[in-house]
Amino acid sequence: MNLALDMMGGDFAPLEAVKGLLLYLQQQGKGTVYCIGDENQVQALLNEHAVPKERVVLVHTTEVIGYHEHPTKALKDKPGSSIGKGFQLLASGKADAFISAGNTGAMLVASMFFLKPLEGVLRPTIATVVPKIGGTTGILLDVGLNVDCKPQHLDQFGLLGSLYAQTILGINNPSVGLLNVGEEEGKGNILCKETYPLLKENSRLNFIGNVEGRDIFSNGGADVTVCDGFTGNVVLKLGESIYDVVKSRNIHNDEFMHRFAYENYGGTPVLGVSKPVVIGHGISNDIAFCNMLSLAEKMVETDLCGKIRVAFQSTASPA
Amino acid sequence: MNLALDMMGGDFAPLEAVKGLLLYLQQQGKGTVYCIGDENQVQALLNEHAVPKERVVLVHTTEVIGYHEHPTKALKDKPGSSIGKGFQLLASGKADAFISAGNTGAMLVASMFFLKPLEGVLRPTIATVVPKIGGTTGILLDVGLNVDCKPQHLDQFGLLGSLYAQTILGINNPSVGLLNVGEEEGKGNILCKETYPLLKENSRLNFIGNVEGRDIFSNGGADVTVCDGFTGNVVLKLGESIYDVVKSRNIHNDEFMHRFAYENYGGTPVLGVSKPVVIGHGISNDIAFCNMLSLAEKMVETDLCGKIRVAFQSTASPA
Repeated sequence: MNLALDMMGGDFAPLEAVKGLLLYLQQQGKGTVYCIGDENQVQALLNEHAVPKERVVLVHTTEVIGYHEHPTKALKDKPGSSIGKGFQLLASGKADAFISAGNTGAMLVASMFFLKPLEGVLRPTIATVVPKIGGTTGILLDVGLNVDCKPQHLDQFGLLGSLYAQTILGINNPSVGLLNVGEEEGKGNILCKETYPLLKENSRLNFIGNVEGRDIFSNGGADVTVCDGFTGNVVLKLGESIYDVVKSRNIHNDEFMHRFAYENYGGTPVLGVSKPVVIGHGISNDIAFCNMLSLAEKMVETDLCGKIRVAFQSTASPA
Repeated sequence: MNLALDMMGGDFAPLEAVKGLLLYLQQQGKGTVYCIGDENQVQALLNEHAVPKERVVLVHTTEVIGYHEHPTKALKDKPGSSIGKGFQLLASGKADAFISAGNTGAMLVASMFFLKPLEGVLRPTIATVVPKIGGTTGILLDVGLNVDCKPQHLDQFGLLGSLYAQTILGINNPSVGLLNVGEEEGKGNILCKETYPLLKENSRLNFIGNVEGRDIFSNGGADVTVCDGFTGNVVLKLGESIYDVVKSRNIHNDEFMHRFAYENYGGTPVLGVSKPVVIGHGISNDIAFCNMLSLAEKMVETDLCGKIRVAFQSTASPA
């Protein structure tokens, strides 16, 4: 298995990427890793941290897409950037997955451009894991890729999220909830009112009805919480800020609060495109990079994209 | 000043309402309070807690609108309910403000039916106070009354929120932010993209641009955060659940976290209707009832509704 890793993306790259790579290999990570970045800089760090040479292929580039660059323009102007090269490796089949903590917009645009949505998937989506108070983990999607959604998009997010929860999180028959302002059917904005019947009638989902803001982190909620990308993005960033607060107040070592530590997160998967792509947070540390490599490995190993392809083919087919 | 208080609304009514009323009077509350509820039950509690007789007028009713009743139907079927009687007192001018921790939907429907929106106000709104990490307080609106909004509604929420922040919270020239998925102008869903120019061009607002989910509780954000009622409601309930979590984990005595203690909140004001209405949380305790009475008193004393009336008249007039 070959994983492509952008060594130049993230606030603390390439150092944290190298440290994360080492952690991943120490934890029996199975992949060979294409390290895309400035050869001199990266090689020195790989040597310094004694990263096993046989597990690494250096792919040289000095071009990087900055955080404030316009995604589409930057991808066009910098085909040799670390993100550009990563997607070329992925699209050509040399790499089985690509991971970057760089410019999120560029990662998303490139996912569409190089990989394209799987047949039947109207809108690829990005999801975040959410810690549940009882110790389990759920997911929330969309968290920002699709800020204006139609009911059929949310319906598909339910299936994409279910496949992810089942395949990657190991949740059997994951429950799906529609994020709403009240529990009863018929509640909500126009989008929710029109989405509810679609989810309810979708025999491939374990739909449990509406869930509210208070349910996202509680076990009373759903394993898979579905919402438009505007609401999801607000929730995601609010959750991160709560962690910043508890950290600043020194109560982040609380067992539950610690699970909000987004600098450790394993990144956000792009769901609904043909190959595994994982986008990291800008502040990703070594643990985050290690987790992202593990997540990418798991996405490859379980053939999540293949499972999504099959699920959506059967949706699209005339039966 | 006469304040009407629903003694039957809330999970712990009428006991907490009576205890809150006593607290309010002990803290030099200026109002005479119409206590609407079951005479026998309430009188016994008033005696038991030695609430000063001269500050209280009992208004008898045994009819209550339950939490799960349909608001419009219940108001029609139970004109003598505690909420119905409260609005009658308010509409007739006997009471200057009405406070209830009862059925929120019924409170909102009755606000429209008995009081009507002020001239020029397209959509009355409900706001919640938000604790800021630095110790200050901001507000977020709408938090659930208007789940589908148009740009001009959000523009008006900016003005309603500014008047509230200035008049009630004492914030001079309050900053107004549009809750969005990114900071730059042009970001966001269709609603935000169309709202931004309205807020920017509104000379009566101190508009500071887009704010994100992470800014709601931070000082980097705005004093007044404007959003549609769907997003606001999700944020509100998420915030409450965070408090439940920290409480369950015994870290709620942290100075900042303690400010999330919504059982203490002073209730949610309805903004844009002709008279002061305060809606309490179902789990309101004595402190919450006391705070709601104080808030209602302040709304009357500062003539917030009059200020809103004038502001919106000048908006509506052809100048």
